[in-house]
Amino acid sequence: MVFSPLIAELIDALRCLPGVGPKSAQKMALYLLERDHQGADKLADSLRAALDNVGRCRRCRNLTEETECQICQRTDRNSKLVCVVETPADVVAIESAGRFDGRYFVLLGHLSPIDGIGPEELGLDKLKEFVAEDGVEEVIIATNSTLEGEATSHYIAELLKSSNIEITRIAHGVPMGGELEYVDGNTLALALEGRKKIE
Amino acid sequence: MVFSPLIAELIDALRCLPGVGPKSAQKMALYLLERDHQGADKLADSLRAALDNVGRCRRCRNLTEETECQICQRTDRNSKLVCVVETPADVVAIESAGRFDGRYFVLLGHLSPIDGIGPEELGLDKLKEFVAEDGVEEVIIATNSTLEGEATSHYIAELLKSSNIEITRIAHGVPMGGELEYVDGNTLALALEGRKKIE
Repeated sequence: MVFSPLIAELIDALRCLPGVGPKSAQKMALYLLERDHQGADKLADSLRAALDNVGRCRRCRNLTEETECQICQRTDRNSKLVCVVETPADVVAIESAGRFDGRYFVLLGHLSPIDGIGPEELGLDKLKEFVAEDGVEEVIIATNSTLEGEATSHYIAELLKSSNIEITRIAHGVPMGGELEYVDGNTLALALEGRKKIE
Repeated sequence: MVFSPLIAELIDALRCLPGVGPKSAQKMALYLLERDHQGADKLADSLRAALDNVGRCRRCRNLTEETECQICQRTDRNSKLVCVVETPADVVAIESAGRFDGRYFVLLGHLSPIDGIGPEELGLDKLKEFVAEDGVEEVIIATNSTLEGEATSHYIAELLKSSNIEITRIAHGVPMGGELEYVDGNTLALALEGRKKIE
């Protein structure tokens, strides 16, 4: 009632952003209209441009507006290694760790029959092609260690079993700097199970 | 480096939103592109529409895409009472308190010579007109109780002194439910100074 229709609509539309409730949406809308017309203008344009142009890398399915994403385009990456992750944010996380120089395959989700997400939606047929064509020697499965992530990992491992490549899963255990006292039981169980000989 | 240019631009543009840092901007951008194309579409459209159409109410200077805002249009509001506030969010706050049935005058800021915001930018000449024309009997100044808000309040009081109307300031004191122990000294001093006789 207090806001005119266009402002009310903007507030409502801002709520699609993750972590933004009615109160912050109102704050954002008023801030943009009162104080940052320029920023809002840029936001409207770049959002429209990204929506209209960004699709998926034809190789690794990561988000990009080009045919192939920036990582797939690079010739200095190890093409024998492929890391399978759930989301583009996971690519960012692994890249910023700086220890992986292979390529990625981005599922954009995990198996979730309840939401109608099966192997096809995750492009797993494409993963199989990718792996077969490019002389890949190892596939590292780095899906989340949630129930769905584990299920997806198992499915992929089964799917690729017939191809003659190594399939690995990232290690689970106590995080660096983690105090045992505060680590949950499941993680501790995995850490014990995956123990390594000290040499 | 990891993101393609359009995605990087979108992440950058999202940072104009208040309270959004690089990490949340990235999360928002990926969320919109991965999972909520429809919401993002609506957001881009409504942001553009609001930017292109929303201006200020010709009477009270509140944000609206119409000539007069929804509150100024209403005939059941007490036109003898005007409440001066700094922002549209303050209008929302007072409206939701449900005790005020007059009209508003929205400064969209406060006096701040350092940022080049003087009486003209706040439309104080317009306030004077508004007050003179419409048979206003009382102006309640409800600017924030910050240094700038107080200065603005003083300025407005001086400005309207010559007109034959009552000028009041909202009360300052201990908030409802507030425990004295946790109320700051300035507020307590004001609460003591503004004490009322119990009848």
